[in-house]
Amino acid sequence: MNVAVLAGGLGGSRFARALTETLAPSDVTVVGNVGDDLEVAGLHVSPDLDTILYTLAGVLDEKKGWGRAGETWNARDAATELGEETWFQVGDRDLGLHLARTEALRRGEPLSAVTARLARVFGVETALLPATDDRLRTWIATPAGEFSFQEWFVRRQHRDEVDGVRFEGAEQAAAAPGVLAALEAADLIAIAPSNPFVSIGPILAVAEIRGALEQRRVPAVAVSPLIGGRTVRGPADRMLARLAGGTGPAHVTRCYQGLIDALVIDEADADEEAGIRTIVTRTLMSDADARRRLAEAVLGVPV
Amino acid sequence: MNVAVLAGGLGGSRFARALTETLAPSDVTVVGNVGDDLEVAGLHVSPDLDTILYTLAGVLDEKKGWGRAGETWNARDAATELGEETWFQVGDRDLGLHLARTEALRRGEPLSAVTARLARVFGVETALLPATDDRLRTWIATPAGEFSFQEWFVRRQHRDEVDGVRFEGAEQAAAAPGVLAALEAADLIAIAPSNPFVSIGPILAVAEIRGALEQRRVPAVAVSPLIGGRTVRGPADRMLARLAGGTGPAHVTRCYQGLIDALVIDEADADEEAGIRTIVTRTLMSDADARRRLAEAVLGVPV
Repeated sequence: MNVAVLAGGLGGSRFARALTETLAPSDVTVVGNVGDDLEVAGLHVSPDLDTILYTLAGVLDEKKGWGRAGETWNARDAATELGEETWFQVGDRDLGLHLARTEALRRGEPLSAVTARLARVFGVETALLPATDDRLRTWIATPAGEFSFQEWFVRRQHRDEVDGVRFEGAEQAAAAPGVLAALEAADLIAIAPSNPFVSIGPILAVAEIRGALEQRRVPAVAVSPLIGGRTVRGPADRMLARLAGGTGPAHVTRCYQGLIDALVIDEADADEEAGIRTIVTRTLMSDADARRRLAEAVLGVPV
Repeated sequence: MNVAVLAGGLGGSRFARALTETLAPSDVTVVGNVGDDLEVAGLHVSPDLDTILYTLAGVLDEKKGWGRAGETWNARDAATELGEETWFQVGDRDLGLHLARTEALRRGEPLSAVTARLARVFGVETALLPATDDRLRTWIATPAGEFSFQEWFVRRQHRDEVDGVRFEGAEQAAAAPGVLAALEAADLIAIAPSNPFVSIGPILAVAEIRGALEQRRVPAVAVSPLIGGRTVRGPADRMLARLAGGTGPAHVTRCYQGLIDALVIDEADADEEAGIRTIVTRTLMSDADARRRLAEAVLGVPV
């Protein structure tokens, strides 16, 4: 069984891991968000792709939920000592990846090719694809002004309410090589329990990808990021309340209108109206058993 | 007594240190070469300024002659593991400086301002000025083709003979703020025992700086980088042989025609014709005593 999964950062990477642990790693293709990519001193950083890569490679700092385990911070500390504000934290080994990727991009290698190469070196058998090789950037409109995603999320600690989300470059963006083929070849399309607006939204903003989901011939199922109307981490619940009018399963469904056939929801939300067929399970991926349970619930969606 | 010194990398930094140990640090202004600046994955690296900065700050890796003492290499190692060729070596703390400087340059801060700020943080009281804030890059013509300075020097380990040196951007380059004032205010202008072609040459390629030396009203003295017709390190001797016709003091003098009043030469070269007034001493800066002896020989040039 082949599964193509659309994924953001932490929730997306954990869900991708759940699928690869339940199926074979090579039966899963992950289409990752690049809307939160940024430049740090001109170095290209792809936080979501990196979190997925590190997770699938088993080198993620699980406690922090980003970056590499056993990391050192000498470059950051030196930059800080030299007076440079470093709101976006990069560890030394992480920086090595950013250097390698940036060099490759500057040579003209597309992001998808670089990502595939990095995954290969890390021994990751799951195909990891950026949604697009083109520049696509998420901008967050707030009462305090518009911010790039990372500036809002990291620097301002997503404290500002979100009035809207804009995907710069989305109109011109083509799906990266392999993405449409993976969606076409999949027996099931899954949407990870990531933030619908800023993690999955930028992927669906690529017209070819949205089109592929609209015209799918296989079931598509999303996993709700909500547990009892709250998210485990991050601002998705606040954003749903403000941008979709509430924090129930139906508000998640509305984000994926016409793109999914079922929604996996947590037991805590079982009594809520979802506006679509639901699969109820425990969705918190707290350990390997929990991940497998969630993956099996998703994979059990009948074709 | 105020001294302005034109300096390249290792020889320049050691000589600058010799002067600051003999005078007061704040009585010395160092004008550093930027012709060997490069971009590493888009990060701006100024190898000569950094070597001078680290030397004056007392944090240079003295054994290697570049980079910081007690450095870690996790970013480089990660990049290498990920398949990125890293011929230009950057340590983690060094990388922190490159990140800080690049961010500042991208904000529009001129290189001279960034350099002054970094020096201040390092507690360096000596003024360290890049020759120019403008882009100036040294290109090396060889039988194997033309290479950027660092590509020839580091990547190809300066094995190619040099047919010529070109300073891209030199014609448009203005002296950085403070440089002309320092040359004007100095009681003595010194040229460090650096490579005349690729360390001092790019500085003198800035027309305003060359003009200031030509029209100097104070003595200017160069220290020959040769000891017995050989350089301690680096390709200056081979370049003098090929580009200036020999490796005697006179060939060094010829590089600075009209720009100096005296040449400090090593005892080993005392019998050679120099074509200019010479001061003979031991020029190898092997320890603090040797540095002081050389500095005193230079500072003893009568006004």
